[in-house]
Amino acid sequence: MKKSSVKVKGFRFAAVSSGIKRSGEKDLSIIFSISPCTSAGVFTTNKIKAAPVRLTSQRLRRGLCQAIVINSGNANACTGKKGMRDAREMSEITASILGIDRSLVCVASTGVIGVPLPMEKIRKAIPEAASNLSEDGIIDVAEAIMTTDTRHKISTERFDIGGKRATMVAIAKGAGMISPSMATMLCFIVTDLNIEHTALKSALRGVVNDSFNRISIDNDTSTNDMVIIMANGSLGNPLIDSQSRHYRTFKNALLDLTLEVSRMIVADGEGASKVIEIRVDGASSHSDAKRIAQAVANSMLVKTAVYGADPNWGRIMAAIGYSGARVKEERINIDINGIRVVRNGIGTSSEAQVARKMKRKDIQIRIDMGIGQGSSWALTSDLTEEYININAHYRT
Amino acid sequence: MKKSSVKVKGFRFAAVSSGIKRSGEKDLSIIFSISPCTSAGVFTTNKIKAAPVRLTSQRLRRGLCQAIVINSGNANACTGKKGMRDAREMSEITASILGIDRSLVCVASTGVIGVPLPMEKIRKAIPEAASNLSEDGIIDVAEAIMTTDTRHKISTERFDIGGKRATMVAIAKGAGMISPSMATMLCFIVTDLNIEHTALKSALRGVVNDSFNRISIDNDTSTNDMVIIMANGSLGNPLIDSQSRHYRTFKNALLDLTLEVSRMIVADGEGASKVIEIRVDGASSHSDAKRIAQAVANSMLVKTAVYGADPNWGRIMAAIGYSGARVKEERINIDINGIRVVRNGIGTSSEAQVARKMKRKDIQIRIDMGIGQGSSWALTSDLTEEYININAHYRT
Repeated sequence: MKKSSVKVKGFRFAAVSSGIKRSGEKDLSIIFSISPCTSAGVFTTNKIKAAPVRLTSQRLRRGLCQAIVINSGNANACTGKKGMRDAREMSEITASILGIDRSLVCVASTGVIGVPLPMEKIRKAIPEAASNLSEDGIIDVAEAIMTTDTRHKISTERFDIGGKRATMVAIAKGAGMISPSMATMLCFIVTDLNIEHTALKSALRGVVNDSFNRISIDNDTSTNDMVIIMANGSLGNPLIDSQSRHYRTFKNALLDLTLEVSRMIVADGEGASKVIEIRVDGASSHSDAKRIAQAVANSMLVKTAVYGADPNWGRIMAAIGYSGARVKEERINIDINGIRVVRNGIGTSSEAQVARKMKRKDIQIRIDMGIGQGSSWALTSDLTEEYININAHYRT
Repeated sequence: MKKSSVKVKGFRFAAVSSGIKRSGEKDLSIIFSISPCTSAGVFTTNKIKAAPVRLTSQRLRRGLCQAIVINSGNANACTGKKGMRDAREMSEITASILGIDRSLVCVASTGVIGVPLPMEKIRKAIPEAASNLSEDGIIDVAEAIMTTDTRHKISTERFDIGGKRATMVAIAKGAGMISPSMATMLCFIVTDLNIEHTALKSALRGVVNDSFNRISIDNDTSTNDMVIIMANGSLGNPLIDSQSRHYRTFKNALLDLTLEVSRMIVADGEGASKVIEIRVDGASSHSDAKRIAQAVANSMLVKTAVYGADPNWGRIMAAIGYSGARVKEERINIDINGIRVVRNGIGTSSEAQVARKMKRKDIQIRIDMGIGQGSSWALTSDLTEEYININAHYRT
């Protein structure tokens, strides 16, 4: 994937350094479409919502958006009325310099909570970014929205819609404060597709549930999460609605895209050395299966055991036991990377063999509860000293 | 407190090395009363219960117990039918050597999950321990039940009951797999009090809820937790029931005892360098206050910030926001070690001052939600590299 050469018809991108990040790295970005886009968003479920989350979720109610202005290094969360004024001003400056209505501008912020935005820096940086907009700027934006991320995150899907080749690109960030049951991190998806608003919205909600809402790094839900999709119709395909035969093609491509980004985020989890996929089958219901998958994914003891390549399946059994799901201990089977470690609730004698397989970067834990048809999955990272190091000393 | 000299009338204690712990440290203990005791227990809520938990909770239904046999280094959990046979055999050997009925013997185990007990070692060690029983053995038992604990845990209460001086001692272990809403770790409480069974049971349930169920180290609930209290009546006081005027004196002493042990367990949490007390007031209900206290106590980001002495109150706000409790952001006040860091939802400018205070070992976080009368509290430890180190490499 030549990430640097990705373009999406009708979209322009730019990122500059405003000085919010002390390192002098790029921290202010604009995503712009030459025409208004059909748009939808999914936002954090945290009841403490950052100002840009409140503003953007309001703006997207009409389903239209033409530009997003994004800063990193400062979350503009827990900043009271000034925070809302600042978010609104960011959108107004962007709108006026781009010559569009301010209701068409969304705002996103990520970084430290509780510090007022340095607006004098942002006021200077927005016009600078606007004058640098280019078709080739996707990678700049992906880099400029990073905080504790070690790698930028771009994912691309191309698919055919009635003989035309559509493009869809996701730009994302996220490495900490990540836990299921919310929109998770920042992710901006742009496509040249022509698609109706309700169809776009329902597709986005559906795939977020089956991708971002399955991942966790540290069980902490951010105040700033958002996923926004913008479709500008530059492809010129006949309008897709939820009854169109192309709707499924689009939704599948969107799911592939968000799954790839989810995996990128977990792999780049703060301090992570391994990606852990937990698959649960045979639970008494899907919701029980989800409870089990999440309890195992969130267990610090499971995550540290995986880090130490220790097939300590007793910790998996303990997490199953406190998940709240219905359990028949003597029916449980567990496989780690394809090797059975628990049969009918009791350990097999395969630990030495499994320990060797656990040195890999990808760990699959498959749990069969043996009592029903419920299934689910979750994706997480291991827990290492480096996570502690990053989070004990993030601001200093 | 001269721990080594503590005695409780009519109780005998012993610990020996059976060879379960590879280090050769003591790992098999007996607690014995010269007469049958009124007894009660509280057990793990984990649905995967270790064999000794299942056996002991059965045995305590009648409210009588005269001896407890305890091994460390092996949890006898997830060991199937053999596990139950082994736990029963431990009680039978102990009963026969002490000359009491096996229904009067409780069994407790702690250590690694999923490994069958080495019964040949245990069969030899029980008679050896029985022949060493002594009034002075409390400290030996406290040491022999340790696993990843770095310090033994003994707490003593003395209080007057109708002119007589009663003694109550708790012996506990616990440093990992600790999270609220269960009986938590191993804790054995012995007293010379004469008390009726129902009163004893309801006092124990009550205080566990207000002490052990408020602490967490890593949000993982063990398969082996139990708290047992034995009252042998050696004091000769008139029988206490729940209507007696001495019931409250006893229950207060029991709460002080379990609170002290709770604090000891958190202070010795795996890798812990600080104890964090979270106090929530002004929530819309007590259950909302509890949700908030637990969300903050369980937040890995809050725990790592405390470790780094970083007054990163944004992480506390984020945890409040995802706790599920009712929230009015602009009403929230937060103090850390007596200094206001958030007023009406917005940061004060006191962080440098707070950062200095956070170098202490004891951290108090007080949250006032400003919307009701609900209050609660929780106790936790910080999260350090050492926790990862211990748990990534515990068995190797």
